[in-house]
Amino acid sequence: MSDTTPRVEPRTLKGFQDLLAEDLLPRQTVIRSIEAVFQRYGFSPLETPALEYLDTLVGAGGEETNKALFRLQSPEEEDIALRFDLTVPFARLLAQYPERLKPPVRRYAIGPVWRADKPGPGRFRQFTQFDIDVAGAESVAVDAEVIAVMCDVMLALGVTDFTVLVNNRKVIDALLDGCGITEPARQKHVLRVIDKLQKVGIENIRAELGRGRVDDSGDPIPGVNLDDATIERVISFIGVNGATRAEVVASLEKALPDIEPSREALAEMRDLAEGLAALNVSEAHAKFDPSLARGLDYYTGPVFETILPNAPEFGSVMGGGRYDQLVERFMDRNIPCTGMSVGLDRLLAALRHLGAGAAPAKTVVQALVVTMGAVPKGETLKVAAELRAAGIRTETYFGKKMNMKSQLSHADHYEIPVAVIIGEDEIAKGVVSIKDLRAGKQAREAIQDHDAYRKAGTATQVTVPRAELVQTVTEFLARHSA
Amino acid sequence: MSDTTPRVEPRTLKGFQDLLAEDLLPRQTVIRSIEAVFQRYGFSPLETPALEYLDTLVGAGGEETNKALFRLQSPEEEDIALRFDLTVPFARLLAQYPERLKPPVRRYAIGPVWRADKPGPGRFRQFTQFDIDVAGAESVAVDAEVIAVMCDVMLALGVTDFTVLVNNRKVIDALLDGCGITEPARQKHVLRVIDKLQKVGIENIRAELGRGRVDDSGDPIPGVNLDDATIERVISFIGVNGATRAEVVASLEKALPDIEPSREALAEMRDLAEGLAALNVSEAHAKFDPSLARGLDYYTGPVFETILPNAPEFGSVMGGGRYDQLVERFMDRNIPCTGMSVGLDRLLAALRHLGAGAAPAKTVVQALVVTMGAVPKGETLKVAAELRAAGIRTETYFGKKMNMKSQLSHADHYEIPVAVIIGEDEIAKGVVSIKDLRAGKQAREAIQDHDAYRKAGTATQVTVPRAELVQTVTEFLARHSA
Repeated sequence: MSDTTPRVEPRTLKGFQDLLAEDLLPRQTVIRSIEAVFQRYGFSPLETPALEYLDTLVGAGGEETNKALFRLQSPEEEDIALRFDLTVPFARLLAQYPERLKPPVRRYAIGPVWRADKPGPGRFRQFTQFDIDVAGAESVAVDAEVIAVMCDVMLALGVTDFTVLVNNRKVIDALLDGCGITEPARQKHVLRVIDKLQKVGIENIRAELGRGRVDDSGDPIPGVNLDDATIERVISFIGVNGATRAEVVASLEKALPDIEPSREALAEMRDLAEGLAALNVSEAHAKFDPSLARGLDYYTGPVFETILPNAPEFGSVMGGGRYDQLVERFMDRNIPCTGMSVGLDRLLAALRHLGAGAAPAKTVVQALVVTMGAVPKGETLKVAAELRAAGIRTETYFGKKMNMKSQLSHADHYEIPVAVIIGEDEIAKGVVSIKDLRAGKQAREAIQDHDAYRKAGTATQVTVPRAELVQTVTEFLARHSA
Repeated sequence: MSDTTPRVEPRTLKGFQDLLAEDLLPRQTVIRSIEAVFQRYGFSPLETPALEYLDTLVGAGGEETNKALFRLQSPEEEDIALRFDLTVPFARLLAQYPERLKPPVRRYAIGPVWRADKPGPGRFRQFTQFDIDVAGAESVAVDAEVIAVMCDVMLALGVTDFTVLVNNRKVIDALLDGCGITEPARQKHVLRVIDKLQKVGIENIRAELGRGRVDDSGDPIPGVNLDDATIERVISFIGVNGATRAEVVASLEKALPDIEPSREALAEMRDLAEGLAALNVSEAHAKFDPSLARGLDYYTGPVFETILPNAPEFGSVMGGGRYDQLVERFMDRNIPCTGMSVGLDRLLAALRHLGAGAAPAKTVVQALVVTMGAVPKGETLKVAAELRAAGIRTETYFGKKMNMKSQLSHADHYEIPVAVIIGEDEIAKGVVSIKDLRAGKQAREAIQDHDAYRKAGTATQVTVPRAELVQTVTEFLARHSA
């Protein structure tokens, strides 16, 4: 690099994140657990590009996502954008490859999506979604399976205290129908207000259904302007609950107008309840909640989201629902779909908060080859090659400072469990020294006395013939994983 | 969706690709094999966002990559772009997190990168790189390890016929120095010409080093305008070879001018040869080749790339080198680095061509629950739940057409190995029928006679008590994996 090149400040884009090993290693473990659950339910992988034609994306999710698109131009000067979810690209695929993706089809996908929203703690402009979808199945039996997946994912991650809230857009539609709210924009407005219940509380909902309110920052929030009787009807509807899913359905039957859409919605909820029971989904883990609306425009039937009662500040960590009309956007035939998305970044943040998920780790390295004095580099490489051939994840050290202290401090910084030490003496004698760095550390931490401290540090080190290198390192590693 | 919404044509951007299960499943197997090799050499994972500030990227890779950037604006109207490789973001990280990423540091990263190049077969505008890098180690012992990784990756994938070509920018610099070619733009021009040897052949190289030539399409390619004596010197240099790495170094010593840069470059090549020998890298797999230049501007020392002699049309499937000055772009201190990148899409295409890599598969599903007649959906879900609880990857079928033929044709299309069949009869009797679909298919394919055909199709089906469901399916699956 020439000296005239101006220095570039190293920085991450606002709302974006860099993930180092200590972030990624537990993340990968969580991804693998989730993937195993998805596969067990018969889902196979699928992947689409980050960029899509703008017309594929605009209008598919609603006004909010239209505004949040990262837009750009292709080399051919076409309007393109980064995808805002994995669902719309999946709908595109179904229309584009009808022969290869013959319905019914179950797929999972993991990948980054982009939304130019206001970033906040745990809210990023690039975040990872991990989705399952079933295309070509109308039955809510499949929605029950999706909900069962949501439960199994949490259980696979060792979390038992979670709730999957379940509702049905048809239930809300029946209510709105009964209240005479038929205009689509108005319906969407009511949906949006209902959806905020957990966040803003019932009194603010009441105000927003009526004349609106002023929020904490002093900004006016326009209301839906419903009359008082209708407001009370909506409020009592979203307040419906019960000890079991069947009880909620029974109460809903009373809260909804006695019209055909209500009967259809209630029948679906009963089928869904039956499916959940057949799949052994406990009443504690999946609850019917009429206040659940979900933000995206494309939902048409059951909707669901997972919340963590002990980590409410993270909101929903998974969410989804049935979208029976999205594929029609791309083809003349329609394919009913349902699915859900894990918000991986938020889920991981919540797991960290709960002390659940995978144990933290800074490295995958199991052994560091440490040199004392003028050891030929080839000797270091040979020892490493021997360990690696035995499947031991091994790092060599060729840092700037080659003294013992720097090398052991490197092992300490990255929490490498075992050091294999070679010096001129060791090489001459045909031996290696192997040091258990975790045991040494634990022992030293427990001891106050200086002499004992020194002894503990060395008691965990052995010198063995070179032929016993692999076996000894393997034994040292097994000590701690046991 | 309202009927007024215009239909959107489902299409993939030019130069981009959708990956369905049959593409992704072998891809995932290959990724896991490579990841295991990377980890064995002590590399830990790391991830950066797709988007970077424009000034982070522009000028880091050279004119070619500057032109190929997908540029856009952040919500704050800053100039940003999609990354064109994973190396520049890694250099940024080293400067941004000096405490967390204390050198020496080994990392691997996998992810998409974007280049607005001309797409072609196996050349995409979004493609996946899978990189390793070592930061903070000056010694070419580490370059030897990177080359050993490249070899082990190919061996792990079952490919033995490959060559890692190795050279050193310092060797080329010494040649240029001796030839009096000192001006940077001119040096880069010669590098670019040399780099094309494999693609265009020696006579075209000779022409481009001189007055230029006209390519096949009739376009003029300007020459470097070297004099004849210098051209012959360059030509004889890039023709240097030998049966072993040591022989190439010995020949290079004669071809290079007797100046300090030559001596330094040759010493590095000798060290590299020693490192490769210590790591048991065979002479057949890693060869020194003075004609290797590599396109990117940031290389400063050893450079390497992997080619497949039986699939030359795919070009290099991995490539890398030492870049000792890139981090300086972002900080006042310098950190020497080396690394390499697997071009995953190209590698997979080449593996497919060679019949190597992972076996193709269309689904992860092991068992499909098939229903005959009016089976309650809950029964299907229960059978599936039982299989899944035993770890068997199970799909239920709730497609549009529920007849037996549609269900078995679904299993056939996705190559699902086992069908679990339940009907009203089976439920009443407390039994299930289990059908080995692969065996049935194989048997039918081998038989011409109609009666034998029918028998073979049913001989692979058994009816067992419900309690033996899991055990029988497990046995059927084991038959074929054995």
